[in-house]
This record gives sequence, structure tokens and C-alpha cells, in this order.
Amino acid sequence: MSRGIFITMEGPDGSGKTTQIERLSEYLKENGYDVIITREPGGTRISEKIRDIILNKDYTEMDPMTELMLYASARAQLVNELIGPGLEAGKAVISDRFVDSSVVYQGIARGLGIETVYSVNSHAIGKYMPNVTFLLDLPAEEGIRRKKKQAELDRMERESLDFHRKVAEGYRELSSRDPKRIQKIDATLPIDEICDIIKDKVKSIIE
Amino acid sequence: MSRGIFITMEGPDGSGKTTQIERLSEYLKENGYDVIITREPGGTRISEKIRDIILNKDYTEMDPMTELMLYASARAQLVNELIGPGLEAGKAVISDRFVDSSVVYQGIARGLGIETVYSVNSHAIGKYMPNVTFLLDLPAEEGIRRKKKQAELDRMERESLDFHRKVAEGYRELSSRDPKRIQKIDATLPIDEICDIIKDKVKSIIE
Repeated sequence: MSRGIFITMEGPDGSGKTTQIERLSEYLKENGYDVIITREPGGTRISEKIRDIILNKDYTEMDPMTELMLYASARAQLVNELIGPGLEAGKAVISDRFVDSSVVYQGIARGLGIETVYSVNSHAIGKYMPNVTFLLDLPAEEGIRRKKKQAELDRMERESLDFHRKVAEGYRELSSRDPKRIQKIDATLPIDEICDIIKDKVKSIIE
Repeated sequence: MSRGIFITMEGPDGSGKTTQIERLSEYLKENGYDVIITREPGGTRISEKIRDIILNKDYTEMDPMTELMLYASARAQLVNELIGPGLEAGKAVISDRFVDSSVVYQGIARGLGIETVYSVNSHAIGKYMPNVTFLLDLPAEEGIRRKKKQAELDRMERESLDFHRKVAEGYRELSSRDPKRIQKIDATLPIDEICDIIKDKVKSIIE
């Protein structure tokens, strides 16, 4: 086992992952950790280039299998270049999205199937599964409403309401299958309250 | 089964695949086929963007698994957008490289293993395996000598002589395993002679 701690944040776009990651990072630093914050798809020079292809809103012809494999490509590079070495060096790694996103977006919402997602991704992630994952649970409509206030939407964010509903439901299904690792949190709660829930859980792991 | 014919050309860089593909295309057109010529990595708008990442000579930090998955991503898009529809419409599809390249370059030369390559790629290619594959067999040294006369080398072409030797040897191993599909041809033969060998074989398939 690696010596560091690997924490991932999951949830629909607009669920507030970025804010919670920043708060959690401060908490971990206060507790003596070197912290690496990263995101998917992206986080390395090559993975960010892959991200540009995945999220390009013009690529409406992208096949779901191409999408799945591009996410896995970016993940393989991120794991081998940043997450793996960070954990082996005893650091805390917080990632905005990881393999659970592929399970939900490509496996469930795109309909490729959970088995296919794991079959491809097992080669990308190797032994590195998160110690704990926080799912910021939000109704699809609310996620879209929050995102629309922001900048131009990317290829994934432009998907239909039906797609985003499948994503939200897929996340809930995933957390009910593995409630020990995946902690579901109501993302409509006040930011400070969500932050406290996350810190309490992480405290129980690092102590 | 699809109604078209799927032919792939394999071999080290510099083995003369492009010339033979052009000749073969003419032959197939003379025999009444609509012909699609494509290449890997690439062949579609999205796959060509993926190609730019794979072959970028600056990306020396690319992990072998990332490389494998990027090739598979480009392949999934090519199969779903061009090769599959072409074959279903009864066309002849000639591709400069296909899954055998991944078996040899990533599976054997990079050492990821043939099983891993098939495990990932089975999702990308589905039912579309070539009807026949021509391997233009060339000693590694000769391939490199021919390439160096050309434009700037890409990331794969810049690999060591040892790597290119593993590629040449890997191709031979592959053709000896599946001699019925993979036709090995001495690429140091005169161009016209190679062309005749290829046409004779294709003739036996389409007649």
C-alpha cells in the first residue's frame, strides 16, 4: 500500500467540488500534509491536451468509446506522472473527479456499461483507488442552473437534461453500492456545513 | 459479416507502405470497388488531433499506457466513423496500420504485453478485423536509414535502434502466429514485385 492519502471529489458540474477541494487542502496542510490538487481530465501537460479534445464543443461526432478511452488515456498519464509518485512520497492527493466519473458518465449515462469502463480503466489506474470519495449530490436541474451562470459550456456540459439526470442518478447508485468509500453529501447544504462533514470524515482517516 | 473488404498495411516506418497502398487502391478501383484509404493514428478529424498528441516529439514523458490508450482512442473513432460504415456499405477499406501496430509497438516493443493490448483494443475495434494484412518486412537499420532522408522525425521514429529492432522482430513473430491473415513480404524487393505479390493475394480474395 502507498503511504499517502488519496481523496477524490465527485458530482455533477456545478455541485461545488472546487470550493470544497480548496477548503480540504487547507485542512490537510494544517495537519502536516504536503498536498497535491489535481483534476480530471487533465492535471499533466499531456492530459490537459487530451482534455482539450474531450471537452471541445465542436466535436459532436465523438463516439462514446473514443470518449471513454480518451478519459482513460488522460488518467493513465495523471496516475503515472503525478498521483502515483505523490502517494508513494506520502503526500495527500485530492483529485477533482477520477474513475467514478467514467463509471457514471460513460458507463451509465452513455450506456457503455460499468464492466467495460472498469475493463479499460483497470489498466489506467493500476493499484491507485481513492481512500475516500466525496459525492456532492445535486439534482440535475440545479447543476445545470448553476453552470449556466458561468462561462461558455463545454461538450459534456452541453448534454441534454436527460443525460444529466442519468449522471445524478448514476452517482447515487454508485454510492449506495460502495457506501464505505463513497460518502454522499447533499450539495444544497451551506458550504461551511459540507466542509465540516468532509473534514470530520478525513479526520477519522488520518488520525 | 460485413460485405466490404478490409485490408491493412503494416511494417516499420520506411518500409514503403504508402506507395503500395496507392497501387493497391488503383487495382481495387479497376475491379469495381469504391475505395477508402485511411491511416493510423488518424483518419478522422478527432483521430488526427489525437495523432498530434501521440507523435509530438516534445512529449518524451508520455507513459506507455497513455500511448496505448491514445492509439486505441483514435482507432475507436476511426472504426466507428469511417471503417465500419465503409465496410457495411460494401467498400474496400485500406488502412496504413491498424491493431497489429499496437500489438507490436506497445505490446512487444514497449513491453506492455500482447494480452493488455488486446484487452484494451477489443473495445475499440469491435468485430472489424482485417480480411488480409500485408507486412512489409524490413531490417530495423534499413527502415531508419530510409526515414532519416525524410523530414523531421516524430516521437516514435526517434526511438532507439533497439526499440526498432524489437518492432521488426515483433512483426515477424506476429506473422508467424497468424500466417493466414498476415502476409509477410520482403520490403527490400523492387516496388513492382511487391505490388504484384499484393495484387495476387487480393485477387484470390475478391474473386
